[in-house]
Amino acid sequence: MKRIAYFNGKIGDYEELVIPFSDRSIFFGDSIYEAVLVLDHKPFTLDLHLDRLYNSCALTEIRFEMTREDLKKEIDKLLAVSDMGCIMLYLQVTRGNAPRKHEYPANATPNLLMYTSAFNLPPKDKRASLLSMEDLRFQYCNIKTTNLLPNVFAAQKATASGATEALFHRGDRVTEAAHSSILMIKDGTVVMPPLDNLILPSITRAVIQQICEEAGIPVDVRIFTVDELLAADEIMLCSTTKNVIFVYEVDGKPVGGKDAALRDTIQSRFAEKIFEETGVRL
Amino acid sequence: MKRIAYFNGKIGDYEELVIPFSDRSIFFGDSIYEAVLVLDHKPFTLDLHLDRLYNSCALTEIRFEMTREDLKKEIDKLLAVSDMGCIMLYLQVTRGNAPRKHEYPANATPNLLMYTSAFNLPPKDKRASLLSMEDLRFQYCNIKTTNLLPNVFAAQKATASGATEALFHRGDRVTEAAHSSILMIKDGTVVMPPLDNLILPSITRAVIQQICEEAGIPVDVRIFTVDELLAADEIMLCSTTKNVIFVYEVDGKPVGGKDAALRDTIQSRFAEKIFEETGVRL
Repeated sequence: MKRIAYFNGKIGDYEELVIPFSDRSIFFGDSIYEAVLVLDHKPFTLDLHLDRLYNSCALTEIRFEMTREDLKKEIDKLLAVSDMGCIMLYLQVTRGNAPRKHEYPANATPNLLMYTSAFNLPPKDKRASLLSMEDLRFQYCNIKTTNLLPNVFAAQKATASGATEALFHRGDRVTEAAHSSILMIKDGTVVMPPLDNLILPSITRAVIQQICEEAGIPVDVRIFTVDELLAADEIMLCSTTKNVIFVYEVDGKPVGGKDAALRDTIQSRFAEKIFEETGVRL
Repeated sequence: MKRIAYFNGKIGDYEELVIPFSDRSIFFGDSIYEAVLVLDHKPFTLDLHLDRLYNSCALTEIRFEMTREDLKKEIDKLLAVSDMGCIMLYLQVTRGNAPRKHEYPANATPNLLMYTSAFNLPPKDKRASLLSMEDLRFQYCNIKTTNLLPNVFAAQKATASGATEALFHRGDRVTEAAHSSILMIKDGTVVMPPLDNLILPSITRAVIQQICEEAGIPVDVRIFTVDELLAADEIMLCSTTKNVIFVYEVDGKPVGGKDAALRDTIQSRFAEKIFEETGVRL
């Protein structure tokens, strides 16, 4: 159950490994990251995560030149010394080391930082509660960067209030949660917000979208408001470390719980996807 | 001319010192910072910077318990091994080391990271150019955090275009620059935006405000638009590493240059303030 850390090829204890003082993630949060679900050393949707990782590099102009094949080899090295069972694989690519200056350094080489840690997926009948708050984040939420302080504030506030997660809205518009995506079910349709610069293109959401396609469940990609969410048949909270769970309460008021059939279909097909790819039954 | 680094009492080379893998500044940008002008080992407006540093800790709920007196002792240790002449003293306080999790760790101890590096203040007759762009940052700009990626993007874009700095606006409203404040002079009055959550409470601006008070120069604290800025008599670009310089061009079009007398008064009184506190004539 130990966290194992990796930095540029070096593997060690999470508490003991060190990184250079001059790494730009320290001064500027100048780095991007991914978190991947791994079951018995088999990553789930790894290629989708690596697509997004390389896309985050492109969007931030971080010149990470390690090929996908080589990156997978590094991941394998870390997994080989990691626990079996359910773990999270965390990857972070920083712009590299340089004397501190806002502008990109001319010759910095990106650093690759990873770790694995055991965790428990919530049971699929776990019900979540949300605390709503204005989304005060930047307008680069489509890039998975380590500029996460507003998410930290939101998660802290939600947890301190006893809620599972934050519910971010910009004015009326629902965006997402502090470290999860928010979708809803209304009249048999799965409704998800458009993928613009205000939300992260969630991998879990992409899997759900595929499930809907395969199962003939209608999907509507559109902006929705907090009031619409509160009146939804079901509210879905999605992320790599929880897959998809459903919300029973927002700001202390009951919500959802009106489409058990579709809820069950999505969750069991999600478990099926995981089984197909990893061979592990949740 | 070497950069000297400091981490929790340890002093070493900027390129060689290391910090723990699990520091939250790496994963979340969960840290705050300051940059102080130091001339011949004498810091300028250090107490204003430390006021802001402790205020940033309070606003982020980073429990930095080192007293101001002890912090000054640590700064003195670093300055004692640093170059004479003109240097920047950089200080960063992180929430500390912990297993990665958005919520604040219960028992983490903040880390203190510093460095010094020689630099040249621009000559006071240096003229700056700006590149305007929409301000896409978060709404915690009043806190001096290391969530700086949008500032990095903006500085990079401005520099790549040949401009000195970015000019951020939210819609019509001028906020600030990527790593400087923006004030203007109109009809003998110094105009500065209100200190809300969209701009940093600049120390250089505070010094200018004091100069205005002492010299009987009227100050108007109010929101102003890009069009107003373009029509100003002078545009001022302020920061610790440049004090105050004036802008001659925005997006390639000439601006300012219409109040040489007030420009000179502010700059010479600024130099006087520095002399009074450090004994160094610029």
